[in-house]
Amino acid sequence: MSVTPGRLANAIRALAMDAVEAANSGHPGMPMGMADVATVLFSKYLKFDPQAPKWPDRDRFVLSAGHGSMLVYATLYLTGYEAPTIDDIRNFRKLGSPCAGHPENFELAGIETTTGPLGQGFATAVGMAIAERHLNAVFGDPIVDHHTWVIAGDGCLMEGINHEAVGLAGHLGLGRLIVLWDDNRITIDGATSLSTSEDIPARYRASGWHVESCDGHDSIDIARAFDAAIADPRPTLVACRTIIGKGAPNKQGTSATHGAALGAAEIAAARETLAWPDAPFVIPNDVLQEWRSFGKRGVDARTAWEARLAADTNAAEFTRRMNGEIAGAPAIEAYLAELIAKPANVATRKSSEMALGAITAAMPETIGGSADLTGSNNTKTPATKPLTKDDYSGRYIYYGIREFGMAAAMNGMALHGGLIPYGGTFLVFSDYCRAAIRLSALQETRVVYVMTHDSIGLGEDGPTHQPIEHVMSLRMIPNLHVYRPCDAVEVAECWALALARKDGPSLLALSRQNLPQLRVNVEENLCAKGGYVLRRANAARRVLLLATGSEVSLAIEIADRLEEHGIGADVISLPSWENFHSQSQAYRDEVLPDGPLRVSIEAGTTFGWERYIRDGLRFGVDSFGASAPIEDLYKHFGLTADAITPQIINKLEGNTN
Amino acid sequence: MSVTPGRLANAIRALAMDAVEAANSGHPGMPMGMADVATVLFSKYLKFDPQAPKWPDRDRFVLSAGHGSMLVYATLYLTGYEAPTIDDIRNFRKLGSPCAGHPENFELAGIETTTGPLGQGFATAVGMAIAERHLNAVFGDPIVDHHTWVIAGDGCLMEGINHEAVGLAGHLGLGRLIVLWDDNRITIDGATSLSTSEDIPARYRASGWHVESCDGHDSIDIARAFDAAIADPRPTLVACRTIIGKGAPNKQGTSATHGAALGAAEIAAARETLAWPDAPFVIPNDVLQEWRSFGKRGVDARTAWEARLAADTNAAEFTRRMNGEIAGAPAIEAYLAELIAKPANVATRKSSEMALGAITAAMPETIGGSADLTGSNNTKTPATKPLTKDDYSGRYIYYGIREFGMAAAMNGMALHGGLIPYGGTFLVFSDYCRAAIRLSALQETRVVYVMTHDSIGLGEDGPTHQPIEHVMSLRMIPNLHVYRPCDAVEVAECWALALARKDGPSLLALSRQNLPQLRVNVEENLCAKGGYVLRRANAARRVLLLATGSEVSLAIEIADRLEEHGIGADVISLPSWENFHSQSQAYRDEVLPDGPLRVSIEAGTTFGWERYIRDGLRFGVDSFGASAPIEDLYKHFGLTADAITPQIINKLEGNTN
Repeated sequence: MSVTPGRLANAIRALAMDAVEAANSGHPGMPMGMADVATVLFSKYLKFDPQAPKWPDRDRFVLSAGHGSMLVYATLYLTGYEAPTIDDIRNFRKLGSPCAGHPENFELAGIETTTGPLGQGFATAVGMAIAERHLNAVFGDPIVDHHTWVIAGDGCLMEGINHEAVGLAGHLGLGRLIVLWDDNRITIDGATSLSTSEDIPARYRASGWHVESCDGHDSIDIARAFDAAIADPRPTLVACRTIIGKGAPNKQGTSATHGAALGAAEIAAARETLAWPDAPFVIPNDVLQEWRSFGKRGVDARTAWEARLAADTNAAEFTRRMNGEIAGAPAIEAYLAELIAKPANVATRKSSEMALGAITAAMPETIGGSADLTGSNNTKTPATKPLTKDDYSGRYIYYGIREFGMAAAMNGMALHGGLIPYGGTFLVFSDYCRAAIRLSALQETRVVYVMTHDSIGLGEDGPTHQPIEHVMSLRMIPNLHVYRPCDAVEVAECWALALARKDGPSLLALSRQNLPQLRVNVEENLCAKGGYVLRRANAARRVLLLATGSEVSLAIEIADRLEEHGIGADVISLPSWENFHSQSQAYRDEVLPDGPLRVSIEAGTTFGWERYIRDGLRFGVDSFGASAPIEDLYKHFGLTADAITPQIINKLEGNTN
Repeated sequence: MSVTPGRLANAIRALAMDAVEAANSGHPGMPMGMADVATVLFSKYLKFDPQAPKWPDRDRFVLSAGHGSMLVYATLYLTGYEAPTIDDIRNFRKLGSPCAGHPENFELAGIETTTGPLGQGFATAVGMAIAERHLNAVFGDPIVDHHTWVIAGDGCLMEGINHEAVGLAGHLGLGRLIVLWDDNRITIDGATSLSTSEDIPARYRASGWHVESCDGHDSIDIARAFDAAIADPRPTLVACRTIIGKGAPNKQGTSATHGAALGAAEIAAARETLAWPDAPFVIPNDVLQEWRSFGKRGVDARTAWEARLAADTNAAEFTRRMNGEIAGAPAIEAYLAELIAKPANVATRKSSEMALGAITAAMPETIGGSADLTGSNNTKTPATKPLTKDDYSGRYIYYGIREFGMAAAMNGMALHGGLIPYGGTFLVFSDYCRAAIRLSALQETRVVYVMTHDSIGLGEDGPTHQPIEHVMSLRMIPNLHVYRPCDAVEVAECWALALARKDGPSLLALSRQNLPQLRVNVEENLCAKGGYVLRRANAARRVLLLATGSEVSLAIEIADRLEEHGIGADVISLPSWENFHSQSQAYRDEVLPDGPLRVSIEAGTTFGWERYIRDGLRFGVDSFGASAPIEDLYKHFGLTADAITPQIINKLEGNTN
């Protein structure tokens, strides 16, 4: 190396402090503190090729401490990725720059996952490491053989999700996962001793991890620790003892460097300290050339890999899977035909299992699991044997009681590529993993959440387990497709849509209780339209009954009652509000014409139904639920044909009582 | 003891298996497995008095593994609480019975916290233990001197929140906290070895805990472990090695006993095994008498405590605080008067800090904190010094990067009584603690969430940090009062309402950015009405501008523009939708009359605003945000007077473009 490691690292430091200064916003402390570690990683260890950023067998690098985003922008630029450019970095945190406040996978090819919400990058990396081992088991060493590297801070380690991620990684023995902990002993509030007294290495060892320590400013010591990490069969935590903001002489080692620009005076002093006289955003040629050479380290490995792949019998299948092209649609169609031949009057969680039976048999890229509710979520199928430490070829993960860790791991598998993960828990516990569901939506991962027991219909477990606000509030997350299918046919249709969707997550809200199969026609995937007239009025139409999921059959029952009174009612199933909204205005007007009284029925909050119901009636549950058998609950909350039908008739007759 | 411990424990086993059988729903495995441990606890250790279930100095008992609810119903009945009765237990999990599927604090006096969502009972208990030590520091040993006992299962220990709770308890050295871990090595999916390989005692020791182990079916060994736990100054985990469903001869030790009725045959076999020939719900007299005697153990201690309290100089203050009667309203009024004299054009997070300055000085029961965002959430005041292991009298908790653990601990402090906790994080991270916010609402705790950076107005940190759906989706949680105040006056009013509220949580959504003080009149707490006309139209009223928080000042600007065009517009501030809905229809109609064009402006999802806006216009942000300076973002998302005013005028003129 013609340039010293310290000078190479100072390029990261300079870019970080200058970009934050220009933006007058950002976090210089972490990139400056971890610059030496990152330099060792990118110069000698990370397997990557800036010319082929999506090379499937590259190492994955995750900056879990996403606020230190300038570290990754700097290394991407320095090693020669097409983007970001130096101008992008100059425009750090400005509108239109791909160098956003936190790293966003949809902005830059070299960014593997969107980070910032603490702890999740780490937990997402666990999913990547699972994907790597699984695909290795399926496709072999010549095709899949890489590491997942993570930089994590104290925040990532203190968040609860860290416990779930560490436990899962240790249990599965993910030895290709190496976490570089920025052990700088500083958080936003001050010294870590303000809030924690934990012996972190001991905790990791307790979960089956290997732990190394190093001086995070000594390249040789860092490399020694990395070598030990690679050699050990367990996942490794490398405690990198660093000084936050290193190089800023008056502020380093304090929380003052964490999340604010250093200021002109301190930057001038840092330039002295770092022997870095160059102007902001100018990288001296010797330094840049050396960094660029690191970006060429991977070319040979990548071309050799391409040759191996070309010669591999599974090349087409591997490529299909990494490209996210799905097979399996015929299997779903055949299954749908079976449903018409032999209707299934079962809970939608059960018909989800039936659909999954066909799907998992036909789609080897599906990988399932549950947060310890396998038998309740109905997520396991004959085609999916367990994925274990001793057999990574399995396609079913016993995630344990780790909803948040599961969801983040699913994101990681999807981001790695080659897999379409699905995972289950009770819908009410979407609250436990909501932050990861949001990140699925933001980073456009193809994952499927199987959320069962989707209303008071779960019965006796009571209000702690009964979703009320969940379906509606999940509908509010941008880019999340929420499905609440009403029967076995809709379930299969929703599964088909979820699997086909390339640009984001889907969530299925499924019933615990049995439901009749209402659909008898499967020529068209009607759930793709989001909402449709399931049954037309017989008598003159005076009512539109809008319902979802388990309440669609109730709406049918009410329609029957109304017809007995000579009142015609269309029954409209609305399994996906997102899909319905993407239909043409003409189609929506056809389904929901003006004129008839609109009535909504959904066993959840009525707040939000104002979108469709103006002067009509909204039936639902606007308080917490209760513990009782399902029939008693539906009666208690007034969700029966007996309770609702007369109210509709009254309303039509203009009674105010 | 005239009855053997085993026979006493069998009373719990019999009630548990018979109640679950009668309900044909529930979880017999845990109560049967932990019956011996519970018997030792209630017979010899727990300080309680069924005649005075709210005795402030009682030990707190938390069944974190809430699915084992029959354990607590059984012990409450057996020890002689007024409720539940044997008929209540007979009606376990039926509508109207206080013996709900999971323990609910609002149903039975002996239940300290609502549990079921795993991990939270434990984390709530940490808050109770903090409250105990703090009140001990304030009021002294004679008045406050008790333990917090927890029964937790593998699920509670595997959830991420456990890491946060364990870390916080270890850091604060909460030696009065004793957790009895039901170490039965079974979860719903099967053996714990399916999903975890953790050395749990080692993990706890790494966080500063003391760990004991015992045979969970040997009374003498259990008592030995309890004695060691009490003697040790650290929080203690007692690993109680148990057999799940013990007593059911063919199913014990398997997940088959976890969550389903045992069935008639197995129950008959269990009656043989347990030598318990009595009919369901019949407790033999010798057993019941012995259990009832345990319920009288605490009478002397309680009466002695009452005498000590009566003699204590702080008796009135202690009683006031434990009764939840608040002082401090005059301080807020005085502060409001100051605001009128000297308006504060500051961010609402800043004016929240100003209000808190007055509040914390006047209300010693307030106890604050932040999940490592103290300087950003503005939650620290001069009156609140840190609460530390060495000084429990402090009133500010550095919670660390533990949002979920913070929220649960706040619930625990509120449930303990004597404290009103508030805690801060960024609003977007409400997702990290949403499950605890929901439990605040369900169990009606008086806690205040200080959620700052409440929109794209946070600027450069970008979409991972910008709430979009959060305010609206939080409004959907039953019994949660969400406030989004528009200026310093509204902030103070919302704080006054939140503190005065006895039956549930409040959440303040506060701006990062500066906002002008709009209110000049403080005669009446207008936020109590939830919505009100902040400024009346000057010209003939053709528009109603509805806004919250930071967008109210934007609405004022737009109203000014409209007036320039001769169009009158009322500006309506809607800081609390919940409060507005509890107003009379007449009042609401007065604020929101029919006729004028309604326009909503809120820098978040427009989904949900259909509640107020039918044919009008809804301005907001329906996608994820972006990373940029605030001005650029408001412009980018069309939330400026320049962008909105012409659209309103167009709409009034009937243009469709």
